[in-house]
Amino acid sequence: MPTTSLLLAWQLKGKRVLIVGGGDVASGRLESILAAEALVTLISPRQGLHSKTLGLLQQNPDRILYRDRDFSATQDLEGIDMVLTAIDDTNISRSICNLARERRIPVNVADIPPLCDFYFGSQIQRGNLQVLISTNGQSPKLANIIKKQIESNLPESVAKAIENVGALRAKLRERAPGVGSDVGKKRMRWMVDVCNKWSLEDLALLDDQGIEKMLNLGWEKGTVISTSEAGIPTSRFKLPEYTLPAVAGFLSGSLITCLAVIARRR
Amino acid sequence: MPTTSLLLAWQLKGKRVLIVGGGDVASGRLESILAAEALVTLISPRQGLHSKTLGLLQQNPDRILYRDRDFSATQDLEGIDMVLTAIDDTNISRSICNLARERRIPVNVADIPPLCDFYFGSQIQRGNLQVLISTNGQSPKLANIIKKQIESNLPESVAKAIENVGALRAKLRERAPGVGSDVGKKRMRWMVDVCNKWSLEDLALLDDQGIEKMLNLGWEKGTVISTSEAGIPTSRFKLPEYTLPAVAGFLSGSLITCLAVIARRR
Repeated sequence: MPTTSLLLAWQLKGKRVLIVGGGDVASGRLESILAAEALVTLISPRQGLHSKTLGLLQQNPDRILYRDRDFSATQDLEGIDMVLTAIDDTNISRSICNLARERRIPVNVADIPPLCDFYFGSQIQRGNLQVLISTNGQSPKLANIIKKQIESNLPESVAKAIENVGALRAKLRERAPGVGSDVGKKRMRWMVDVCNKWSLEDLALLDDQGIEKMLNLGWEKGTVISTSEAGIPTSRFKLPEYTLPAVAGFLSGSLITCLAVIARRR
Repeated sequence: MPTTSLLLAWQLKGKRVLIVGGGDVASGRLESILAAEALVTLISPRQGLHSKTLGLLQQNPDRILYRDRDFSATQDLEGIDMVLTAIDDTNISRSICNLARERRIPVNVADIPPLCDFYFGSQIQRGNLQVLISTNGQSPKLANIIKKQIESNLPESVAKAIENVGALRAKLRERAPGVGSDVGKKRMRWMVDVCNKWSLEDLALLDDQGIEKMLNLGWEKGTVISTSEAGIPTSRFKLPEYTLPAVAGFLSGSLITCLAVIARRR
C-alpha cells in the first residue's frame, strides 16, 4: 500500500539546487527549478547534455553554475539546499543520496522512489495558480491524464482573478495595516466575503478603479459592493448550458410536426 | 510579485514532525501529518488544546508524543525532520524558526510567510489521488473555491481506477522484473498504452480476473486487449450529455405545433 504524501509548495527563491545529470529528465527538473527562482548548480559531462538542457544553460548563464564533469565528492554538496539526480548509474545515485541525507539536504533520485524524500507529480501552472496532481507513485500516466482533464475544466479567467484579488489584498493591507490583530481578522473576513460574493469571471474584470471603489464604498462601510457599483460591466448575460439543444429540439419537433400535418392534408 | 513554488509530494513515513501549538490551525496540521504516516511530537500546554487536537491525541496515542508545556529549547528539535508552529507569539515563532534553520530542518510558521520554507495549500484526497491547489499566497480563499470546482469535476471512478492500475503495475513487475533495463522501459510503454486505450471508467471496473487476462492475452503478446476481451461489461451505453434537453425540446415543439394546428382547425 502506498503512503499518503504531504503535498507542499516549496519555496526556493534564492536557494541553491544541485542537479546531477543533463539528459531529458534532468532538463525537465531544471525547468521547474528555474521557474521557482532558485539558483542552480548543474553537474554533467557536456557530451551527455540534452539539447533542452543546453538551451536552458544558454538562456540562464547568470542563474546556472555549470560543471562539465561527473559528480565528484562531498564538496559538490557545499552550500546546497536541495539535490536532484537524474543519471543512469544506480550506484552513484545511491551514494549521492546517502551523502545528501547525512547533511540533511532533501534529495530526489529519478526513478528510485525509496531514495526520494519527495516526488514530483503532474503540474499545472496558470499565472499564480499552481496545481499538483499526484497518484502517490501508483500511475504517473493517470496523473497526467487527470491533469489534462482538470486543466481543460479550469475557467479561462482564473489567473487574472487571482492576480486581481492579490492586488486588492495588497491595497487593503496598505489602507488597514497590522498583523495578528483584530484588523488582520477583519481584513481576512472581508476578503473571504469578496471571493464568495463575486464570481471568478467578475473578479477577473476588476481594474484599478474598481479596486478603489471596492475599498472606498465597500471596505470602509463594512460591506462588499456589487459588480455594477464597482463599475464592472454587468455580468455578461449567459444562456443556460442546455439552451441550444433544447431550442434545436423544439424547432425540429415543431418543423417535423408541421410537415406531418401537411403530408396528411394532401 | 509572488514567486512560483516548487510543488512537491513530501514523504514523511517514519519521519518525526514537531508541531508547536494545539489550537485550530495546529489541529489541521496534525491531521495532514498523521495522514502522511509521520510520527509527531506535539508541544502545547493542555489548557490551550482545541477539542479537535485533543480528539486526535486520544485516537493516536502510539503516534503522537505529547508534551504538556511550552516550547522550551534546542533539545526539543533533536531527532526532528520537520517543524510546524501555530502559536500566537510572533517572537517565539521567529526564534523556533531560526533554531530549525540553523539545523537545516524544514519549517513552516503559520501566518508568517517569510518564515516558511514551504506552504500548505488547498488539498483534495481521493484514495491515492492527491491534488494541491496553490495561489502562491495571493488568495487562500480563491484556492479553496478552485479546489471545490476541481473536486466537483473529478470523475467518481478516479480513485478506483488508480488503485486498479497500481495493482496491474505491481503484477506486471512480478511477471517481468528488473529495473533501469529495457524491460523497465517496455513495462512503462505498455502501462502508458493501457491508460491511453482504456477510459478511467473502464479501468475502475477492472478486477483480478481482468488483470490476469490483460497480462496473459495483452502483455505477453505485446498488445493491449479491449475491455470486452478482459471480461469487463462492455461500456455502459451513455446518452450524450445534451440528449435530455434536446428530446424535451423536440416533444414540446411537436406538442405545441399540434395544439396550434388543432386550434386553427376549429
